[in-house]
Amino acid sequence: MYPQKMKAAVATRFGGKLSIEEVPVKRPGKNEILVKVMACGVCHTDLHAVSGDWPVKPKLPFIPGHEGIGYVAALGEDVNYMKEGDVVGVPWLYTACGHCEHCITGWETLCGQQKNTGYGVDGSYAEYVVADARYVGRFPTNIDFIAMAPILCAGVTVYKGLKETEVKPGEWVSISGIGGLGHVAVQYAKAMGMHVAAIDVADDKLALAKLLGADVVVNSTRQDAGEFIKKETGGVHGSLVTAVSPVAFRQALNTLRRKGTLSLVGLPPGSFDLPIFETVLNRFTIRGSIVGTRKDLQESIEFALDGKVKATVHAAKLEDINDVFDNMKTGNIEGRVVLNVGS
Amino acid sequence: MYPQKMKAAVATRFGGKLSIEEVPVKRPGKNEILVKVMACGVCHTDLHAVSGDWPVKPKLPFIPGHEGIGYVAALGEDVNYMKEGDVVGVPWLYTACGHCEHCITGWETLCGQQKNTGYGVDGSYAEYVVADARYVGRFPTNIDFIAMAPILCAGVTVYKGLKETEVKPGEWVSISGIGGLGHVAVQYAKAMGMHVAAIDVADDKLALAKLLGADVVVNSTRQDAGEFIKKETGGVHGSLVTAVSPVAFRQALNTLRRKGTLSLVGLPPGSFDLPIFETVLNRFTIRGSIVGTRKDLQESIEFALDGKVKATVHAAKLEDINDVFDNMKTGNIEGRVVLNVGS
Amino acid sequence: MYPQKMKAAVATRFGGKLSIEEVPVKRPGKNEILVKVMACGVCHTDLHAVSGDWPVKPKLPFIPGHEGIGYVAALGEDVNYMKEGDVVGVPWLYTACGHCEHCITGWETLCGQQKNTGYGVDGSYAEYVVADARYVGRFPTNIDFIAMAPILCAGVTVYKGLKETEVKPGEWVSISGIGGLGHVAVQYAKAMGMHVAAIDVADDKLALAKLLGADVVVNSTRQDAGEFIKKETGGVHGSLVTAVSPVAFRQALNTLRRKGTLSLVGLPPGSFDLPIFETVLNRFTIRGSIVGTRKDLQESIEFALDGKVKATVHAAKLEDINDVFDNMKTGNIEGRVVLNVGS
Amino acid sequence: MYPQKMKAAVATRFGGKLSIEEVPVKRPGKNEILVKVMACGVCHTDLHAVSGDWPVKPKLPFIPGHEGIGYVAALGEDVNYMKEGDVVGVPWLYTACGHCEHCITGWETLCGQQKNTGYGVDGSYAEYVVADARYVGRFPTNIDFIAMAPILCAGVTVYKGLKETEVKPGEWVSISGIGGLGHVAVQYAKAMGMHVAAIDVADDKLALAKLLGADVVVNSTRQDAGEFIKKETGGVHGSLVTAVSPVAFRQALNTLRRKGTLSLVGLPPGSFDLPIFETVLNRFTIRGSIVGTRKDLQESIEFALDGKVKATVHAAKLEDINDVFDNMKTGNIEGRVVLNVGS
Repeated sequence: MYPQKMKAAVATRFGGKLSIEEVPVKRPGKNEILVKVMACGVCHTDLHAVSGDWPVKPKLPFIPGHEGIGYVAALGEDVNYMKEGDVVGVPWLYTACGHCEHCITGWETLCGQQKNTGYGVDGSYAEYVVADARYVGRFPTNIDFIAMAPILCAGVTVYKGLKETEVKPGEWVSISGIGGLGHVAVQYAKAMGMHVAAIDVADDKLALAKLLGADVVVNSTRQDAGEFIKKETGGVHGSLVTAVSPVAFRQALNTLRRKGTLSLVGLPPGSFDLPIFETVLNRFTIRGSIVGTRKDLQESIEFALDGKVKATVHAAKLEDINDVFDNMKTGNIEGRVVLNVGS
Repeated sequence: MYPQKMKAAVATRFGGKLSIEEVPVKRPGKNEILVKVMACGVCHTDLHAVSGDWPVKPKLPFIPGHEGIGYVAALGEDVNYMKEGDVVGVPWLYTACGHCEHCITGWETLCGQQKNTGYGVDGSYAEYVVADARYVGRFPTNIDFIAMAPILCAGVTVYKGLKETEVKPGEWVSISGIGGLGHVAVQYAKAMGMHVAAIDVADDKLALAKLLGADVVVNSTRQDAGEFIKKETGGVHGSLVTAVSPVAFRQALNTLRRKGTLSLVGLPPGSFDLPIFETVLNRFTIRGSIVGTRKDLQESIEFALDGKVKATVHAAKLEDINDVFDNMKTGNIEGRVVLNVGS
Repeated sequence: MYPQKMKAAVATRFGGKLSIEEVPVKRPGKNEILVKVMACGVCHTDLHAVSGDWPVKPKLPFIPGHEGIGYVAALGEDVNYMKEGDVVGVPWLYTACGHCEHCITGWETLCGQQKNTGYGVDGSYAEYVVADARYVGRFPTNIDFIAMAPILCAGVTVYKGLKETEVKPGEWVSISGIGGLGHVAVQYAKAMGMHVAAIDVADDKLALAKLLGADVVVNSTRQDAGEFIKKETGGVHGSLVTAVSPVAFRQALNTLRRKGTLSLVGLPPGSFDLPIFETVLNRFTIRGSIVGTRKDLQESIEFALDGKVKATVHAAKLEDINDVFDNMKTGNIEGRVVLNVGS
Repeated sequence: MYPQKMKAAVATRFGGKLSIEEVPVKRPGKNEILVKVMACGVCHTDLHAVSGDWPVKPKLPFIPGHEGIGYVAALGEDVNYMKEGDVVGVPWLYTACGHCEHCITGWETLCGQQKNTGYGVDGSYAEYVVADARYVGRFPTNIDFIAMAPILCAGVTVYKGLKETEVKPGEWVSISGIGGLGHVAVQYAKAMGMHVAAIDVADDKLALAKLLGADVVVNSTRQDAGEFIKKETGGVHGSLVTAVSPVAFRQALNTLRRKGTLSLVGLPPGSFDLPIFETVLNRFTIRGSIVGTRKDLQESIEFALDGKVKATVHAAKLEDINDVFDNMKTGNIEGRVVLNVGS
């Protein structure tokens, strides 16, 4: 039983404000479920979606949000492996084709026919969201929805990015940027047995990194981060660049020891200057990493459920979304804002 | 028994001509052997060495050459695992420390204390060369020295570069540049069970690629290489860039299917523009590859001994080296020139 | 358009003869297709199915056959990625759950809820067979059905088994048993760039292995296979055991060099005596390999389409199946028998 | 400066008692160092050495001990990368050839010409021991020698064994046998981010496992360990068998989920019954693991220096060695006995 209408934050034109509206609740189709949203994290990607500043734009109007979490409220056809009342998370990867070479090898995040929640398909800035049951994350019922929401994108993205560095337990990783992604990355890295060197330009963020277990921290406005980290660690085995700026990229590359791997997450426009001589001589590997597969998602959730990873969150109301966006634009947010939709 | 003096091509000042001189034959020290050089390939790196245009320059005077091959003429102290008359090749990696983290994990090519033949240590543009017995390649005695010499650098470099793409048998690799390195790379790739797409700007080189087994060839002056190769192959799983120019880099990146790996060999100055959005969204991997380890070298030799790889070679005399260099500068060389020193 | 009735070879009681009957043609359901069978290979597993000698038995009556190949004759609901007239192969893995940890990581062959063609679901000893469209192999239309049928089980099984040895191009693999599986394995191994050492007890089979490219062959009734192969190759890097007997297992283990991997295919009852001291001291890896995933299947098909792998086949009529089984029981078959159903 | 004579525990006949003798202190040769032993752990292997019950016996008389740790007292020729006063550990792998295929790929533990400390070469049951400087472990000087000694064999062996399971952070490993090796393994596994299921027959050992971080423990005398662990964990991804008995092997195999890997450490005689059907159907991997390489050793030491792994130790005097052996034979030892040689 679910209502006909729901409250949602709707993007009606690119660059404009979201409008809080009453819209119809959709019915779940084949392989789909309807989810009663309890909470939904706010991600920078949502800002890109609403601004329409990526090459392929969403079709207006649409509802953003790809960190939604809540209760299964209704099952569509063929969904016999979950039940109403189950708790699920609805991630960026709404659905994929299921039969391309990437889908059949556990890399559905590379499917060329994928659809994305809150972008090509309505998302979770709403009281209800329809999800493809085959692609949701699974949770137990006794959880803190606000705390868990950011795992669905921020969590899985950095977790996968760390896996892609191929750093092994006992080895060193540098994490560049201790913001919404980075402060979660520090925790995953520690839970994965890595030693962590954190880089940022703000001392309070570095203090947080330290608190979360970073073994070495460096303020790159005061020292050469690469030089300092190389001195302290002998050079890191991998580096996760969450602050995707040319400066951050170069700094991160400088922290690597020979044979190191740099993993990029996030989707800024533009390009990096990759120095050839250094890359070849040092056998560096540079790798792009895009969110995470269903398996990555479930693994990233397990770390959070084990209490090993906890995003710093600030709850807000659905109606506050435009203010939240304004704060994001000015970089005025620490950790992750989560819309408390359901309680 | 070996003579006191030998003929050698010596670099006495950067940018000048090599002079053919009588110089003393050195005695092999501990862990070293003296090799009677039969042949030595000429590599672009030798030109860099003689020009002194890399950041760290060789110390003058010196003898270039890191594709030397010949007979063991004398054993230094502690060399009890080979004998006089054995055939060995003396590669770029003259020696390494043996106990750093890279040396003890089979990555001695990354040793920070390595010395390089024909650069930091005298090379094989001479009738005799001293080598570290622990780092030479091993051959049987009944071989064609001229034909085998280029395996010691050109061969192992592209072989390792191909391994670093992680392309598996039955998958596709694109090879950009069918010159001295590329035409050898095509043969290794085929011997490793790969499908090959060759890119060049010259039709005769593409004809050679076809002859050597390339499944698809494209002249990038007449078509968009990336588009064409993607249409023909669905996108390649890996790409080897032997022609290290920004244009070649971009083209090679465009040939990749999602999850593809681009491997760079060679050491040009400068940098590439790495497009972030594409790299992340497609989960591309970009990796530098530097020559090859002893194990890589021995493997690359085995492929050549099996008759699966044969470099196109032109013999020249040691005295011709300055002409050979002149031809290299103007790009006037097909395949590899090998100095016939010993017969 | 397809008929209401078809001819099929039906198992009606365990251990009895198959009866050739007229049975109804089933309609394809959701995600399913109806395939007009052109050919179907005969596998030892079919004999196990009909004998009912495995722990979990099929439910009688049923139609065996899991190497069926033919034309798509009708599409079930939701199948929009193929069309009537396409050529597909219907393998052992009929379907899997699609959402367990194995299914979402490209290991659907390990799904605990899988169904198997010709065992839990009717197979291709019939003019028509229903298949799950998501799990079939894809072929072009201009093929030799009789020649291709064995790839669907024999081919993919040994191909995967070879991948599981982790032997790389240029390295050595030993293949024990050059029968229906082994003679196909020799060809895959060569196409994958491996050196092959073949072991059998029959000289004619070793002659075939040689013809197909085996570099070394040994008749284990006349020599110690392990000793001989170690002398010739220095020990192999991997071994594929298709002849699953305790003797063959021990011999294969003896061919390995240190760090080697032994891969087992096939499902005999019983157990092997694994010598601990040797396994530990030599860092041996022993691994079971079960058919292949959809990706493995498609890869194994590509090798065959490229002409690199060709099973020795003997055509028979559907009506001959009981004779074929009799010959199999007495070991009187060379290569693979394929039922010519469709022409 | 070091004395001419030292006290040592010498094996003079197989099966007899060690005799405490004054013996000459050897001089370090090329690549060697003399180490002033501070402590040396006692390992079961020493008992095998002294009993002479392995196929290849040590040559009498000899000094056992391969968990020695102490100060560098003198440097042999060519050792220029350490200095007197450095702290080193002298492991089982005394030396290896340095140029075979295993040595040059970071697998010197598989070198066919290796020598072993306290077996083929005199060990650390003595005030001084000669070591090959290229194969020792490195420590800072401010350490607890007694506590660190067991890392040199017990530590590195289980650490490597865990790596060989290929279990990743967040996944499950079962550890069978919580004795001298197992209780160290639990700690390494936790430090590597694994979830641990511990199996033993003694409640006090399971209590210790729990204390050290095991997530699940099971007494296999009271329950079916495989069944219980599968119920609690869904089956483990890897299993480390330190208690090398046929029963323990079978139990460990039963704890695996599909695609799991079982890693064997230790060198008992005899063999295991490997069930073929299960191994193939479940794609199990069984792998032998033998001590660890220099890199493994150094990594295992780092974990201990970080305080993440601490062996339970009992100090004894060199003169007590025969009593210690007697207690080992009766299984009367908890954790590891370490001879306090140096203070």
